[in-house]
Amino acid sequence: MKMRAARMYGYKQPLRLEEIAVPPVAPDEVLVKVGGAGMCRTDFQLIDGYFDSGLEMDFPITPGHEVAGWVEGLGADVPKSAGLSEGDQVVVFGSWGDGACRQCHVGNEQLCAHGVWAGFSRHGGYQEYLPVNYRYLIKMPGRGDLTPENLAPLTDAGLTPYRGLKKLRAGGHLGAGRTLAVSGIGGLGSYGAQYAKLLGGGADVVAFARSEDKLKIALDNGADHAINVRDKDTDAVREELENLTGRGELDAVIECAGSEDSIRLAFSLLATEGAVASVGLIGNRVDIPLFPLVAREYTYFGSFWGNYNDLTEVLALAEAGRIKHTVTRVRFDEVNETLDAIARGDVLGRAVIVYD
Amino acid sequence: MKMRAARMYGYKQPLRLEEIAVPPVAPDEVLVKVGGAGMCRTDFQLIDGYFDSGLEMDFPITPGHEVAGWVEGLGADVPKSAGLSEGDQVVVFGSWGDGACRQCHVGNEQLCAHGVWAGFSRHGGYQEYLPVNYRYLIKMPGRGDLTPENLAPLTDAGLTPYRGLKKLRAGGHLGAGRTLAVSGIGGLGSYGAQYAKLLGGGADVVAFARSEDKLKIALDNGADHAINVRDKDTDAVREELENLTGRGELDAVIECAGSEDSIRLAFSLLATEGAVASVGLIGNRVDIPLFPLVAREYTYFGSFWGNYNDLTEVLALAEAGRIKHTVTRVRFDEVNETLDAIARGDVLGRAVIVYD
Amino acid sequence: MKMRAARMYGYKQPLRLEEIAVPPVAPDEVLVKVGGAGMCRTDFQLIDGYFDSGLEMDFPITPGHEVAGWVEGLGADVPKSAGLSEGDQVVVFGSWGDGACRQCHVGNEQLCAHGVWAGFSRHGGYQEYLPVNYRYLIKMPGRGDLTPENLAPLTDAGLTPYRGLKKLRAGGHLGAGRTLAVSGIGGLGSYGAQYAKLLGGGADVVAFARSEDKLKIALDNGADHAINVRDKDTDAVREELENLTGRGELDAVIECAGSEDSIRLAFSLLATEGAVASVGLIGNRVDIPLFPLVAREYTYFGSFWGNYNDLTEVLALAEAGRIKHTVTRVRFDEVNETLDAIARGDVLGRAVIVYD
Amino acid sequence: MKMRAARMYGYKQPLRLEEIAVPPVAPDEVLVKVGGAGMCRTDFQLIDGYFDSGLEMDFPITPGHEVAGWVEGLGADVPKSAGLSEGDQVVVFGSWGDGACRQCHVGNEQLCAHGVWAGFSRHGGYQEYLPVNYRYLIKMPGRGDLTPENLAPLTDAGLTPYRGLKKLRAGGHLGAGRTLAVSGIGGLGSYGAQYAKLLGGGADVVAFARSEDKLKIALDNGADHAINVRDKDTDAVREELENLTGRGELDAVIECAGSEDSIRLAFSLLATEGAVASVGLIGNRVDIPLFPLVAREYTYFGSFWGNYNDLTEVLALAEAGRIKHTVTRVRFDEVNETLDAIARGDVLGRAVIVYD
Repeated sequence: MKMRAARMYGYKQPLRLEEIAVPPVAPDEVLVKVGGAGMCRTDFQLIDGYFDSGLEMDFPITPGHEVAGWVEGLGADVPKSAGLSEGDQVVVFGSWGDGACRQCHVGNEQLCAHGVWAGFSRHGGYQEYLPVNYRYLIKMPGRGDLTPENLAPLTDAGLTPYRGLKKLRAGGHLGAGRTLAVSGIGGLGSYGAQYAKLLGGGADVVAFARSEDKLKIALDNGADHAINVRDKDTDAVREELENLTGRGELDAVIECAGSEDSIRLAFSLLATEGAVASVGLIGNRVDIPLFPLVAREYTYFGSFWGNYNDLTEVLALAEAGRIKHTVTRVRFDEVNETLDAIARGDVLGRAVIVYD
Repeated sequence: MKMRAARMYGYKQPLRLEEIAVPPVAPDEVLVKVGGAGMCRTDFQLIDGYFDSGLEMDFPITPGHEVAGWVEGLGADVPKSAGLSEGDQVVVFGSWGDGACRQCHVGNEQLCAHGVWAGFSRHGGYQEYLPVNYRYLIKMPGRGDLTPENLAPLTDAGLTPYRGLKKLRAGGHLGAGRTLAVSGIGGLGSYGAQYAKLLGGGADVVAFARSEDKLKIALDNGADHAINVRDKDTDAVREELENLTGRGELDAVIECAGSEDSIRLAFSLLATEGAVASVGLIGNRVDIPLFPLVAREYTYFGSFWGNYNDLTEVLALAEAGRIKHTVTRVRFDEVNETLDAIARGDVLGRAVIVYD
Repeated sequence: MKMRAARMYGYKQPLRLEEIAVPPVAPDEVLVKVGGAGMCRTDFQLIDGYFDSGLEMDFPITPGHEVAGWVEGLGADVPKSAGLSEGDQVVVFGSWGDGACRQCHVGNEQLCAHGVWAGFSRHGGYQEYLPVNYRYLIKMPGRGDLTPENLAPLTDAGLTPYRGLKKLRAGGHLGAGRTLAVSGIGGLGSYGAQYAKLLGGGADVVAFARSEDKLKIALDNGADHAINVRDKDTDAVREELENLTGRGELDAVIECAGSEDSIRLAFSLLATEGAVASVGLIGNRVDIPLFPLVAREYTYFGSFWGNYNDLTEVLALAEAGRIKHTVTRVRFDEVNETLDAIARGDVLGRAVIVYD
Repeated sequence: MKMRAARMYGYKQPLRLEEIAVPPVAPDEVLVKVGGAGMCRTDFQLIDGYFDSGLEMDFPITPGHEVAGWVEGLGADVPKSAGLSEGDQVVVFGSWGDGACRQCHVGNEQLCAHGVWAGFSRHGGYQEYLPVNYRYLIKMPGRGDLTPENLAPLTDAGLTPYRGLKKLRAGGHLGAGRTLAVSGIGGLGSYGAQYAKLLGGGADVVAFARSEDKLKIALDNGADHAINVRDKDTDAVREELENLTGRGELDAVIECAGSEDSIRLAFSLLATEGAVASVGLIGNRVDIPLFPLVAREYTYFGSFWGNYNDLTEVLALAEAGRIKHTVTRVRFDEVNETLDAIARGDVLGRAVIVYD
């Protein structure tokens, strides 16, 4: 059996669109027919070499760490208790740890020093069929808007800001009378704006972005206010913030943009005891003033992807109809041009490959 | 100047409705013209002697710990920085600590061993004018539904379940995919149902009450489901719960009813790692099985009233239009009969004394 | 190959001491030669029927959930990365979850609703050889006091109070200027007293027990004070506490005794914002007054056994020489009489079966 | 009555040693006869202009925010309940908030945007007598090593790292099997090393400093290991760390040094899920790589001075004899030269002015 695959043969070159054999499944694996493969800015960065020094790659590799689809076949040792049958709709949890370290033992497989990730050191969803260990599949009903193209982005774009916001919430930084900013309304931030309302505990939610289209998505997704930060310095943003919320300060920021400027802006607007959670990764450094961080007791959380339980929570929200999906369907032969558009920030919501 | 006052001269006797002199204000006090005085089941219990052993009372005393109104006059030493002027609408934070203990030093004046409470060991809002230290007044704009009769209950009925829910949230017990019960939809629970949605982080909210009228209030106030628990055992409630939510278990309970039965029911439905926060006080004991508490790692929080910051958060929600008020207006001469109705559980939402 | 085994054929009857075949190992299992098998009050309770209603038992079963020993043989599929070789000293983590539920996904396999436990529904350490999945073995160096007889009790007696204390610490209940009680100085409490000093953050540690021998162990293990609570009411204990610490209140209690009386005593001495963590299980009910729980904001934690990471932390302490072991060696043919002694509370420290 | 005072008349000039009138006390103040006035690197920075832009100064001002001494006289309105009499030994809590903001309402007066600090915008301990509001005095017994010269530094040098470590502990970053570094063994770090053991919950404690004398103090104060980081890059420090602890990573750092280099070193050695708490302030910026912060989920806490309850906890430790004091006595006429020595980092432990 043959399948289409968009594969990476080296850094800084387009993916090769090929027809290759469907891979075999190991006894404890399930063959997933990919119904939706989310395209992430990280995929562009991977190809561009951003992670070059940290990742061992064995080319060719198929990118794609956001995957949902249907069970096509089951390995011999997949237990009945897994509750999986052919045709079931499934979502793939894409980071797989070694099971031995402290991180794995609290479920944070995405932090495992020896972990592997679908679409990075293992093949991912830019191919039609993918074998996945049964323990990383979550079954989902197929009704309503619960389609693979909507579910796939929930495994990263819709997961990463959720985890970051949970850190802000657990740290006591969200609640009534507070202002929470969602900085960057791209793939992650369009979900972030929704979770900000859900987890904010009554906080005012303000979106920061650099285009009106993206700010509109944020407002449609529940943000109370929106500020276009393009070409504005801190004072200008502060003034706008004060006009909108009555205060020129932020108590918490879920930082999805990931540039040096956006991080610096976040800290420059922070109130005493404020917190920033960084989930975005575009720039290389954090460069912020020390004095207010200490004297105003800021907290800064790094937050990475999400763990299995985080994902089940996001899927529970989806099942309850509490997530609005903003998805752009991408045909297989549009993959390379779409990666370019993502790199330019020209895609609204999440681009998802759909194999007809 | 004279004023009306409903005063307590001893236990287990009706309040005496009298006309007395308006009290003088100390230099650091503000004279508050009471615009709304919430009537709490606790007031009935106070008169009935429930707190007899713990409270030193100096009769006659005026009950009423839920107070909002307007500034009528200012003591000579009230600082300008307090920002108070005659005619301002103000809300009274009603528990006043000694300022010296660990509890006071984290703002939990309601837990101060040497604290005094408006309406208990100090005069409260069942009289037309009340002198209050300026530090315990919170100014509120007077627009829309922000009236004293709506604001007064926010200082206890609308505050107590909020604090309890914050404890559940801080303990990690709320979130997507969880079920949160609001047990008891009286004065506290009708607010509790609203906060459950606000703080639940996506949790399913189910209300427990013993009358259809109260369940209707819970549903109107945002609960996702409602179960009439009157005369039902655990198994019957569990079955109904499973039909409504797909699971016969609760992850968290904000227990506003406070009877031995309601607490036992809450624990009997708790899932592994579940938690109960008790804010209701009717019964005298907690009597629950030990084994599941240990083996399933339950957590039980006592939560009492709220502190100043809790109240400012609740008022921020009110100001943002995110609180629905369910208030029954009470005339001064109806005070004693209303206390009886409250004791029987026959009042919907909160009864509030309004002076003409 | 034959081995000795003390096996349970039914409730309320002595274990039968038999010679049976060494069991085969599955491909992912390791055959452990048992070097020390801790004897727990729970083992007596198991035989006595305390858990009858909750556990499905398939007789005969070998008790013993505290196991340490040496690798005797390895199944064919045990990976090299497990780092295990014949002769290695290993400690057995004894609760094995289904890997699929929320609890398992945060590593709390001991809370898994479908979990199995060594010595309960699976064979345990009251036999000379035990096959264990390689993932549940933790390798330990064999030097100094790191012997199987000392290590075995760390998997439950030395683990359970550690987890309970971590809950008290995470809840903010421990620290300088606070008083922390260790209630019950049996198998668990003799470790609890040590951890109380390690985790107390400067708290005063007071031990409660009902015999002078046990109080002596607590003091030897680091407790600052000791109170014999036998036949004393709350007022008498409070007075003694005040004499010892200058305050008649407790801020936190790690409750290892588990009787209704000991739990009631703990709550009756609790200071405002105090907390009790129950790890002991002898009685059947918690019966405590409601009013102080609410009005003084007590917190009550159930805490059960420990998870894999908890155990690695305890073993790190052992390796660093920071745990004092109080072990009574038991010969295989003394098993039944020792269970009786444990039931009477007549064993100091932990009884551990050592095979020759 | 006259007293000696070392006063600041402007930036970048020596203090003027003068004889001036003892100031009057307001009705709610206590006149404190200063017995010890700690000299902080911050005092040098104040004079040097480091805080120039942020502080409004009304010259002349007397520096000195670490003060302990004896009650010399009491204002007319100091209440009996304060329990203060002439001759009592008292410690001064030196940051005084407006009492109105969120920070003040949780006791964090040191974070109040409108707060004033002894020795900055209000006169401090570089003078023989100081009037202080009675609410900011903590009475201490005068026995043993509880002298003003030992107590004074506990109000900042001995307080600041304590609060920072509490943040690390509350965030779950300390415990058995972890490595905790105390970076910088100056005034703050020599206390930090002690608290690291007290709050570490069994963590290995390693001290980083740039002189052997300071490392010796750290080891004397309880650190398990010490590394001289002068002129060493991350790799060199990592190697030494691995030799000492068996791991080349840190789980938590209490960063007392406060330079850009020391902060960068701390982050460069951090393990997954690691945390840094910054309490030191010498440099102006934080400049660290973004990728590991996100992908390894680092947490960064700013922590500033301490609040009233933090101070009472530190004093409880002192009273229990659990703090080792490293104090260098300074005569009044040595103040300016000692400030220079502090600026060069040439003082071991804490310099404290003692008036004869």
